[in-house]
This record gives sequence, C-alpha cells and structure tokens, in this order.
Amino acid sequence: MSSEKVKNSLNISSAIRIGVLGFGGLGQAAAKVLAAKQEMILVAAADQKGYAYAAEGLNTQECIATYQSQGSVGYLEPVGTLTTQSIQDVIEIAQPVDGYFLALPNLPNDFIPSVAKEFIKSGWRGVLVDAIKRTTAVEQLLAMKEELQAAGITYMTGCGATPGLLTAAAALAAQSYAEIHQVEITFGVGIANWEAYRATVREDIGHMPGYTVETARAMTDAEVEALLDKTNGVLTLKNMEHADDVMLEVAGICDRDRVTVGGVVDTRNPKKPLSTNVKVTGRTFEGKISTHTFTLGDETSMAANVCGPAFGYLKAGRQLHQRGIYGIFTAAEIMPQFVR
Amino acid sequence: MSSEKVKNSLNISSAIRIGVLGFGGLGQAAAKVLAAKQEMILVAAADQKGYAYAAEGLNTQECIATYQSQGSVGYLEPVGTLTTQSIQDVIEIAQPVDGYFLALPNLPNDFIPSVAKEFIKSGWRGVLVDAIKRTTAVEQLLAMKEELQAAGITYMTGCGATPGLLTAAAALAAQSYAEIHQVEITFGVGIANWEAYRATVREDIGHMPGYTVETARAMTDAEVEALLDKTNGVLTLKNMEHADDVMLEVAGICDRDRVTVGGVVDTRNPKKPLSTNVKVTGRTFEGKISTHTFTLGDETSMAANVCGPAFGYLKAGRQLHQRGIYGIFTAAEIMPQFVR
Repeated sequence: MSSEKVKNSLNISSAIRIGVLGFGGLGQAAAKVLAAKQEMILVAAADQKGYAYAAEGLNTQECIATYQSQGSVGYLEPVGTLTTQSIQDVIEIAQPVDGYFLALPNLPNDFIPSVAKEFIKSGWRGVLVDAIKRTTAVEQLLAMKEELQAAGITYMTGCGATPGLLTAAAALAAQSYAEIHQVEITFGVGIANWEAYRATVREDIGHMPGYTVETARAMTDAEVEALLDKTNGVLTLKNMEHADDVMLEVAGICDRDRVTVGGVVDTRNPKKPLSTNVKVTGRTFEGKISTHTFTLGDETSMAANVCGPAFGYLKAGRQLHQRGIYGIFTAAEIMPQFVR
Repeated sequence: MSSEKVKNSLNISSAIRIGVLGFGGLGQAAAKVLAAKQEMILVAAADQKGYAYAAEGLNTQECIATYQSQGSVGYLEPVGTLTTQSIQDVIEIAQPVDGYFLALPNLPNDFIPSVAKEFIKSGWRGVLVDAIKRTTAVEQLLAMKEELQAAGITYMTGCGATPGLLTAAAALAAQSYAEIHQVEITFGVGIANWEAYRATVREDIGHMPGYTVETARAMTDAEVEALLDKTNGVLTLKNMEHADDVMLEVAGICDRDRVTVGGVVDTRNPKKPLSTNVKVTGRTFEGKISTHTFTLGDETSMAANVCGPAFGYLKAGRQLHQRGIYGIFTAAEIMPQFVR
C-alpha cells in the first residue's frame, strides 16, 4: 500500500474499485485525487502501452513515477503488463472493477464511443464516466443508450468541468426561470507548462479557427510550440463545439443554439487569465429577465474541476447501477455525490 | 380553462397533475408558475378553510381572485368545498393528483411532518415536495423515511431556494474539493409589501434574537408593523436554523457546523438589499484553498427561486416514483428536472 494513505482492509472491501483508462495529465491527476479518498480505491490503470492491476489497490506515486520514467504503467512490477491492446486486456482481467474513469483524449472523435463498445462486448457490468468535450461525441454515446442498458452498464457522460460541473450548474440555475434565453460558459485555464497536458492543449487548438481536431492532433510538439510563440502562449477560444449544448437540450432546458462555450487558456502561467463561470439568463414567471452566475474559485485547477466532479458522478452512477438503472445519463440530469 | 394558456386535451392527459396545499403568498405564486407550464397542471388547491379540485385543471386567476376576495378557494364555484379539515379532505377526494407542493408555513414546527403523516394514512401514493426551512423539521421528516417508503410516497424535502436551489449549488460546487471548510449562504430579499408574505415574514422574525417561531407566530399584524418601523422595514438575520446544514451533512459533504445561513430582508422595497449567494470554500486535492460562488440574479424574486426549484424537484421525484423509488430525498442529492 502507498504511504500516502492508510486504507485498512475493511475500507478496501467496501471501497468502490476504480479503473482509470488513460494515464496522461488527466489520468495522473485522477489517480492523485483517488489517493486521498476513503470511499474509492484505484485498482487499475491503463495507457497506450500497457496496464497495471492490483485488487488490493495500486500505489499512485509508483504508477506516476513508472509512467513518467518508462512511458507506461505496464512496466510497474509486479502488477504491470505490457500490451498493445491495453484497454481490451484490462477490461478482461479486471472484471471486479466497479467503475472506470475514461481519462482518454477523444481523438479521433469516435474513440471514446469505441471504448464504450469494447466494454459492452466484454460482458463487464458497472459504471463508466467520461469527461468528454465534443457535442458530436456525446451524441454518438447517447445513441448507444439501449446497448448500454442491455449490457447492464450505467454510463455517465460529459462529467468533467465543461461539460460537467458547469453544465450541471446551468441546469440548476435554470430552475428559477420559466424560459431560458442564454447559457454562456466562459473558462479560464492557466497551466505552467503545456507539455503536462499535451492532448488537452491539442484538443483546444482543434477548436481554433483554421484548425480541426485532426490537424491539431497531427501537429508536432515543435509546431504547437511555434503556434504558442505567436500568441504569447495564450489560446483564445470562441463558440467551441462543447457538449454542454446537447446536454442542456436533452435535459429539456433550452435549444442547443442558446448555449455558447468559450475561454482563454494561458499555457505559460498557472494563474487563470479570467475566472471560469457560467451565466444563465432567462425570464421568470413574473416576466423579469435576470442572470444567475456560477463562478469557480481561481485557485482551483482544471484537474480539480474535472476529476472531482467525474468521481462524484461515478459515485452517483454507482447508486443508479445498484438500483438496476442502466443506460446513459449526462451531468445535467444527475446530482453528483460527494466522495469522501 | 383559463385564457392565460391553452392546454389541449392531449396535454392535460399527459401533464403531471399537481395539488398545492396552502394558498398564501407562496401557494398563489406556485399556481402562477404552473399556469405557464405545459408539463404540469394545477388540479387541486387547499387553504385553511376549504379546497378546490377539478380533474381537468383549475383556473389560477379565479382561484387567486376567490381566495383574495373571500378568504378561501373553497368558495370557488362549482369546484370549491368549504371544510375545516381541508387537507384531509382534498387528499381523500383528489386521489388522481400525482404530486403535491406543500406551500404551507411550517408553524408549529411539526406541522409539515404531520401533513406528511396524513398522506401516509390516506393510502395516497405519489410525490410530495416542500420548501421547508428549519433543520429540526427536516430531521423529523428524514426520520419518516421508512414509513414513506412503505406508503409508496417519494418525498422531496428542502426544495425551495434556501434550503433548496442554494443547497444544491453548494453540493455541486463541493465536487471540486477534497474537503469542504465552509458553506456560507447569504440571501437578500426585497418585498414591496410584507403583508403579501405574512407567514414568511413571521418565520423570518422567529429567527431574530429575542424571538422564537412561536412568539413570532403569536404577533399581531400591528406588532409586526411596530417591529418593522423600528428597523426601517429591514430584517437582518444571522446564523439561522436552516436545513441546508443537515442536508449537506446527510449528503456527506461536510459537518453541519460548517454551514451558515443569514440574510437581509427588506419588507418595504422590492429591490434586494444584496445579491443572494452561496460561497463554498474548500481544499483541492493539490492543497489549494479556494471558493466557488453561485449568485442569483437580483431581478429574480423569492417566489421564482422557491417555486421554480420546487416543481423541478417534484418532476425529478416523479421520475423516481415511476421507477418505484420511494422514501425521502433532499435537494442536495437529486438534480431538479426543468419543467416546460
């Protein structure tokens, strides 16, 4: 067991057993978040080259050190396995995992839906949660509702920060109004060093004018550096294709064209260039127009605002799963449950 | 049917049939909110002296006009009935009601729990929602969980503004943090004329130093006027006994002593003396201390922020009920569903 926490055997047996698929910046942050939780335990982690699985729990620090030094958690002794089909293999081996966080960059756009299909095919039953961004990817997942139901999987989609925490805040804020006119999400992200979040930064570039997700993905690190040099490390993003729109539409709150997502990412400064917020404007039953605002504290990182909600939704999904409620739900429909 | 909306017979048959118990300021506002909804229809209303019930829907304007001119919806022809036990009678008569909003002042403190017991006794099955305020009242209701389960009732408690919308926002905001240090709810209420919300203002006075709910309830209108004259119509409330604390504790978010509720009520000015907000301060997994803030638009009234969420929770409760999930849930656990 890791020295960073003491989970006794009683806690281990009652804790929710978690797998993290993807071990880049987001997956590593997820593992760190789990290290402080009593109610959840990291038992499986997978990256492109391998996976690690230990029923009694993985050591987060060792997983991260191994990944960073050798390029895969599969090198971790004695619990690691190197394989070119790490996701399929970990699903197969780690049947006792209760829920997986899909901390995968969704490149190409149908990658996470294809991973969901692997889970369906495997016969595994449990909870899946993603922090996916794009509308079209969430639409693909929503279309898989009946397959997921039949497979006994409870899938929670769009459960990061945006979409996720901010979408849920918008759904909540909407309650005061008879009609919603506009939902405006504006995020500020500050990261000291873009290389710690290569995939995320490439996804952001994919939203900029003149780029697509595919062209951004194909950029070399030097090309990304060159782009960032031109903008002093700042990426300004407008009218992004973010699934907040379809999620609020499916939840019956407003048409998707009333939802906008944009933001500013500073890749050279951990200080946020602006406070991340969502503004919900509507008309009350008395005919008044007003705006509710939910603002995230500047000291909270993208990792905290994505991974915290993701595990909160995973816990909520597990409660649904235990009641026999399968299928797919978005962050706008379900209240995440706080994980101690 | 009221001219304020056109609900065709198809809509009526699929709409959720709502009863409103209590027809003071809050109950009347609830009826107005419902008048604009397609998914819900007001079929029953009750006050201390009588009730009105019409399976095809009540006319909100007529209900309010009758109540205001004659003192009871029971005078409404031909759908009204005068009775000294209006709640018991309406439950008996109006079995097809899907859900009730208990828009009742909770005086004495066990009044709403006693109403819940009437529902249990009657054999009625459906959804109940309250906008109750006090911690001790919510505790009484939470203790009735098994009785409610056995009765086939899904009870949603603490589903107004605070507790309710703001408690849910706190539960959501908490997700970014590993530990919650403080939840601070501060409300501003502006009402042009306190007499429109007599019961609510008396409940607020009951929270002031030197008063209890019982002494406030016993005050004559002249005595309330005299008190308000001394404070220029402004009531400043601190460390109120609000159920936000027990609701966040039961949801596992933090101990109740970390939750505070206070506010300023201006009884002579519809403009809010301050913007209602909830601040959630915690520590992230990285050890950062930060604060998320959810702020309500000043133009939204207490009525909009209470009745909107209440019906959103009623709709969510109905989904639980239809899945056979009975018992009691708080606003901190369940995402309200937007009612069109």
